[in-house]
Amino acid sequence: MTEPSSLPTITLLAGHDRRVSGGHPWAYSNELRLDAEAKAIPPGTLVRLSRADSKPIGIATFNRNTLISARLILRSDTARPGAVNRAFLETRLRAALALRERFFDAPYYRLVHAEGDGLPGFIVDRYGDTCVVQANTAGAEALTELLLDALEAVIAPAAIILRNDSPYRELEGLKKDIRLARGAIATPPQAVEFGVRHGIDPLDGQKTGWFFDLHEARGIVARLAKGGTLLDLCCHTGAFGLSALKAGATSALLVDRAQPALAQAEATARANGLGANAEFRRADLFDAANALGTEGRRFDVVVADPPSFAKSRKDVPQALKAYRKLAQGVATLVAPGGFLFIASCSHNIETEAFTTEVARGIANAGREGRIIVAGGAGADHPVHPLLPETGYLKWLVLALD
Amino acid sequence: MTEPSSLPTITLLAGHDRRVSGGHPWAYSNELRLDAEAKAIPPGTLVRLSRADSKPIGIATFNRNTLISARLILRSDTARPGAVNRAFLETRLRAALALRERFFDAPYYRLVHAEGDGLPGFIVDRYGDTCVVQANTAGAEALTELLLDALEAVIAPAAIILRNDSPYRELEGLKKDIRLARGAIATPPQAVEFGVRHGIDPLDGQKTGWFFDLHEARGIVARLAKGGTLLDLCCHTGAFGLSALKAGATSALLVDRAQPALAQAEATARANGLGANAEFRRADLFDAANALGTEGRRFDVVVADPPSFAKSRKDVPQALKAYRKLAQGVATLVAPGGFLFIASCSHNIETEAFTTEVARGIANAGREGRIIVAGGAGADHPVHPLLPETGYLKWLVLALD
Repeated sequence: MTEPSSLPTITLLAGHDRRVSGGHPWAYSNELRLDAEAKAIPPGTLVRLSRADSKPIGIATFNRNTLISARLILRSDTARPGAVNRAFLETRLRAALALRERFFDAPYYRLVHAEGDGLPGFIVDRYGDTCVVQANTAGAEALTELLLDALEAVIAPAAIILRNDSPYRELEGLKKDIRLARGAIATPPQAVEFGVRHGIDPLDGQKTGWFFDLHEARGIVARLAKGGTLLDLCCHTGAFGLSALKAGATSALLVDRAQPALAQAEATARANGLGANAEFRRADLFDAANALGTEGRRFDVVVADPPSFAKSRKDVPQALKAYRKLAQGVATLVAPGGFLFIASCSHNIETEAFTTEVARGIANAGREGRIIVAGGAGADHPVHPLLPETGYLKWLVLALD
Repeated sequence: MTEPSSLPTITLLAGHDRRVSGGHPWAYSNELRLDAEAKAIPPGTLVRLSRADSKPIGIATFNRNTLISARLILRSDTARPGAVNRAFLETRLRAALALRERFFDAPYYRLVHAEGDGLPGFIVDRYGDTCVVQANTAGAEALTELLLDALEAVIAPAAIILRNDSPYRELEGLKKDIRLARGAIATPPQAVEFGVRHGIDPLDGQKTGWFFDLHEARGIVARLAKGGTLLDLCCHTGAFGLSALKAGATSALLVDRAQPALAQAEATARANGLGANAEFRRADLFDAANALGTEGRRFDVVVADPPSFAKSRKDVPQALKAYRKLAQGVATLVAPGGFLFIASCSHNIETEAFTTEVARGIANAGREGRIIVAGGAGADHPVHPLLPETGYLKWLVLALD
């Protein structure tokens, strides 16, 4: 690939360049001077982003068709036009890898978390020698082949799968694209966590096949469940419940409304010799909570990790009510002196509001609770400090009376 | 101790009982019907707290001379007058102990965190077989002897020290009271953390002699510092720096403006065989940051854990500026690809505002940063979910470019 001798320049409007100059990595479409020339730049092109006074800020990916039109990938007023090349991507990947290797003993983690790793639009999940890549912006799409080259240079995975079906791609004008992009899948990929081997299915499963973001939370829950009983509502493929059983929980009831996820949880339990103490039930979250309440079932640890209740801002009031109702329902199922894990993956719901609704729900159930640990996604999901909205996940572990 | 046959009743004003009925553990003086009889109740007395319609809510400690006049210790509409007795305190202590034993391998932790453990006004820090107790409210003061009895029954410490000199006591009309209350101090108490033995001085040191709330944070920093250099500004008695050296940091520079703390840090380094790679400097936080910047010193990990910048709400704007300035100063000292730990223990500063100022400071230093871990006090500092203000501590670990 020959290096370009120049890049198109996109300029911020006067009075709109302070935020980006101050460290924010995004420029919105209404902040940019979009003349006919700018409008003709194909989505995903690398551009030089400049302040209103023409002082360069850095190199960005550009897509005039989306609200976030420019995403800085390299902040530098002196970068040469070809600076965002394979070597650059390798450097970013090496930094991302070094960070994960400080926090994880085994190669199962999110290796690249978009802006959090200086690679806007890219997600890379690592399952041992298999990497699953998502390109969620036109800019990432355009850089994909270079990124795959860089990934091969840095960690030489046996297989790289593209899992390009996120809803963000539609906003960027991109098509669905799920395929084995490099190498070969010799053995089915696995996520190994707390000694449990989970088969994952990056081609057909949910998202990249696994949810690394709750790894740390699962470790805490497993520790609390040792010697006791656990209920996991919305168990997906059983990560919470099976980690808990492996850590010494006496039994786990795993509930999900999706039969394929439940079947996989059951298969994983069996394959890991954890089937004897695991029970599975197909049901909707709220239905299951009601039914178990009526049955008088109580558990030492209850896990409630529901799908997002607020896909957009307008859903927030209703979502807050739903979190309160959920907290009330599940608090009832916690045995005296037991623990409740409850999470929200809605980035529209703020931590404080979520905490308040959970507290109210617990009080409505006639219980008292204390927050033992409050957390979010783990160290393999770095967050740009000026993009708090990318810290979508929040969870609480509460001790109930 | 004979059980009382009745308790004085304190009644919430009409229209002011919803919050407490809904789970909040405090009633403010302006929410209570304070007739002559109520005003005559001695500070610290146990009372029955009732709704405006006379329905009982539970048993509270009462001090009409403070803003937080009633603190629920037992929420129950059927509790008998003598329910808050030694057996009750033992039950609360056992629950607190069981929780710590799930999270800690050794007996060094905050055993009681006031409302977070259902024991309003009480702090108990545990240093092996020595317990240090603080009674920060008139209610706690009145229950102190019972609590010490309960503590002896539950964990039989060799010594219990009362460290009653917190500023909260003044607000409650209580005097300073520092003394050995039970048992004997045979060997000087220690806090053992990540293999380093720290001598602590609960009678003369700061607070109870040690800061358990950053235990988890110190573990993360130590891991990041392995193989690199560390700077700890405001090192106090050296907990961050010495844990890092023990974990394999190549060197640590420990800075504090208090000579006694610095001397203790140096003694602890020597006693733990960590003196060879430790350097000590007496200086003010901002002076030290400036001087080190001028000297061109750079560190793989920089720790900035300053004292509170906002003792009251009116200090907040100035404190936010100070956090920004601090972040800018210390970001300059972080080597390329290094890490910054920065904390705020000001309960008046909200996490989001703190994060924003830190981000701006880092940007002002011409650096880019990513939040790797964001946390607060550990699991031995449970937080009542309706008292978010008691979650005073917030910290960030950032990876810098």
